[in-house]
Amino acid sequence: MGASGPRSVSTDERGFPRYWDEERETLDPGKREGLILERIQHQLAYVYAELPFYRRHYDAHGFHPAQVRSVEDFTTKVPVITKKMLIADQAEYPPYGSYARDLKAGEIARIHGSSGTSGTPTMYAVSKADWDRAGDVHAMAQWCAGIRPDDIVQVGFPFGLFFGGWGVVQGAERIGATLFPLAITESERHLELMARLGSTVFSATPSYCIHLLSVAEKLGIDLPGNTVRRLLVGGEPGGALPNTRKVIEEGWGATAADCGSTSEMYPFQTSVACTEGTGTHLYIDEVFTEVVEADDLNAPVPARARGAVVYTHLWRDSQPMIRFAPGDETYLDTETCRCGRTYPRMPEGVLGRLDDMLVIRGANVFPSAVETALRSVPELGPEFRILVRRVGAMDEMTVQTELGPAAAPGSESEAARRAEDALKRVLQIRVPVELLAPGTIPETTFKARRVVDERPKS
Amino acid sequence: MGASGPRSVSTDERGFPRYWDEERETLDPGKREGLILERIQHQLAYVYAELPFYRRHYDAHGFHPAQVRSVEDFTTKVPVITKKMLIADQAEYPPYGSYARDLKAGEIARIHGSSGTSGTPTMYAVSKADWDRAGDVHAMAQWCAGIRPDDIVQVGFPFGLFFGGWGVVQGAERIGATLFPLAITESERHLELMARLGSTVFSATPSYCIHLLSVAEKLGIDLPGNTVRRLLVGGEPGGALPNTRKVIEEGWGATAADCGSTSEMYPFQTSVACTEGTGTHLYIDEVFTEVVEADDLNAPVPARARGAVVYTHLWRDSQPMIRFAPGDETYLDTETCRCGRTYPRMPEGVLGRLDDMLVIRGANVFPSAVETALRSVPELGPEFRILVRRVGAMDEMTVQTELGPAAAPGSESEAARRAEDALKRVLQIRVPVELLAPGTIPETTFKARRVVDERPKS
Repeated sequence: MGASGPRSVSTDERGFPRYWDEERETLDPGKREGLILERIQHQLAYVYAELPFYRRHYDAHGFHPAQVRSVEDFTTKVPVITKKMLIADQAEYPPYGSYARDLKAGEIARIHGSSGTSGTPTMYAVSKADWDRAGDVHAMAQWCAGIRPDDIVQVGFPFGLFFGGWGVVQGAERIGATLFPLAITESERHLELMARLGSTVFSATPSYCIHLLSVAEKLGIDLPGNTVRRLLVGGEPGGALPNTRKVIEEGWGATAADCGSTSEMYPFQTSVACTEGTGTHLYIDEVFTEVVEADDLNAPVPARARGAVVYTHLWRDSQPMIRFAPGDETYLDTETCRCGRTYPRMPEGVLGRLDDMLVIRGANVFPSAVETALRSVPELGPEFRILVRRVGAMDEMTVQTELGPAAAPGSESEAARRAEDALKRVLQIRVPVELLAPGTIPETTFKARRVVDERPKS
Repeated sequence: MGASGPRSVSTDERGFPRYWDEERETLDPGKREGLILERIQHQLAYVYAELPFYRRHYDAHGFHPAQVRSVEDFTTKVPVITKKMLIADQAEYPPYGSYARDLKAGEIARIHGSSGTSGTPTMYAVSKADWDRAGDVHAMAQWCAGIRPDDIVQVGFPFGLFFGGWGVVQGAERIGATLFPLAITESERHLELMARLGSTVFSATPSYCIHLLSVAEKLGIDLPGNTVRRLLVGGEPGGALPNTRKVIEEGWGATAADCGSTSEMYPFQTSVACTEGTGTHLYIDEVFTEVVEADDLNAPVPARARGAVVYTHLWRDSQPMIRFAPGDETYLDTETCRCGRTYPRMPEGVLGRLDDMLVIRGANVFPSAVETALRSVPELGPEFRILVRRVGAMDEMTVQTELGPAAAPGSESEAARRAEDALKRVLQIRVPVELLAPGTIPETTFKARRVVDERPKS
């Protein structure tokens, strides 16, 4: 698999193969379901036999892999696993948890992690076979997002514990594109070198893409006039929300492809926005993806109904997730896309985390969307919080933030006005913004809880 | 070459192949010289025919590739190139200079850069063929430094514009070791996860290795008792200087291998300290390395005499350096090493940049060594400067630095004393330290000029 390239008979308008793996990506959905069932049964037998975490969990729920004879059985009978369970198991069985295969020295390709709210990061170990397979999957996803061997892919993700940027590098490398990775902190340099080198693709979080719009404006750089034609965004929800995407696409003069995922499922990047603009394809023969009732994770919802996402690694063996429920919300469209791929789509990507969603005057508000908006205002510092109060029968919210080091002293009211405008643009509702003295809001780590809930406990 | 592994008949005490490429690494030096000459002639003909920068330079000096019939001819007749010339050429012929091959879209694997003093970074483009070859070279060098497929290699270099960390990743990946890359800023996390995951190799700058000694002390972590057995250090001179190496090796309870290079020669990592502790091997059949008179770069010096380093890419085609003089100082030992490799060695690595060296009371002082010392004192901030004054007939120096955010207010004199102790340990001479108010010394970029020379101009 290591040196594989595209396998596609069809070609696109530039003469490149149209698909990374035409047979696989355009397969009849019924046939694909048969393959998925085989892999589901294989993975269930494997994790029950080899990984103590799963055996204990399934035994406790009276579930046995032999009960699964159809994909429907899988959804309705297999108990989910959650982040909380993984954290507890990894604390008890360090360093990778008893849901990880017992990996010998020399079997692991990569170790990564994600910051926990407790300060102890969750660790991910990827076997060499899994890492190699994931490289091919990532290339397939990036190909779907329009990346080709003659692209210069500039990467603006951080390269550290966090998995994201490393996967982008691995996928683009497998495609044979030119890679130009640059630290996320170097915003002016990103823009300057993008122009100098003629980068054609930029990959970062939606927030960072929005932030760079402001930096470009400050520097007088004409972003729509530059060579970037495609943005690969991910690492947080929002990149597929129509409002956010519109801000990004118009500001950059480029199309944006959302590639949201979670560290638990990474480096298997299997959700990627189609170049047709029809939403985010799900490579369900690699990571099987279900949408179920938020309050009953064994009850599927129909196509186009909102629900909770549940993911399953069909091929990973080092630390496989079987019915992992990250708490994300989305809805599916199962009609065949114009691009010819027969995978289901999330028309608006991952909408946000169910736990975090607020309902304000009838509008669903995700803290990530508030962040997206605030990041477009260069005068603001990095910290903010969302205060939610009960006013009569309604919930109301206020956003508190601070001036950043780039702001002129005394520019609070101007910055607050710009923040309110940005929030209106992204959230479609008007939200008051209070500017606090710099340093008032405590500094946060990578994944912060931004919401201060002052509503009476029910 | 892509999927190659070690080619070695001999094995080491653990049953691994002793060499990455036994035939190549243990070749008779006379035979190797013949191969080197062939490649020198090939590269000279190539750059003269294809790269305008070289043709202009050689024509201006009345040099023609046909004049080189021996390795001695090469050293004595080919004019050197310098950083200054490369910067001027790249400014005139952006983005990669007329010393770069005209690379088409899809031919470049990686773009990296190094920060210039002017603020405009120098850009490096590595063709796909060069990147692939460099991966094998890097694996060969790391294998020489003792890295094996069962190692967990934790990387503490920044991953951005700077090339260094990416090469470490590529080499270790080719060996098949486990990679754990982590951002340089996360010092406590580095130490915590090193212990949790059982990392066996740590790779960073010498300064950062010394900095982590202080962090470990503060946290009460027993570094010599942990699993790290080998340090791969580079990115700045000093890692092979006996004093600095002693501080690092004793503090970590691990052996340190210096792998100094320059961005211009990268990703061809061809200088790497031997596990035998005999110095830094130079893979001169990949990057031909000469030591010449500092004031006549066409005059070779004998073995063990100090001089200026001159490098030549024998295989790179994308942006080849032919007799590149970075201004570094070193000396060579040409005796065959105990490890069996027949390459010459730099017994103390690169000693520093000739331009930067100070002579204080008879001692050669490199600013990098001052930095190495100061980095071991956790109370200090990141900035410092070295004031050099004429006192009678002698040069004297004072180091100015500041308290960092971690320091208790009022702890200036204690911090100054600790800084003076650290300088004495590394430089072997006593140097007074002045603590300035935080914020006094202007912030510097990646490669700072630390020396303030107050001596009368002669």
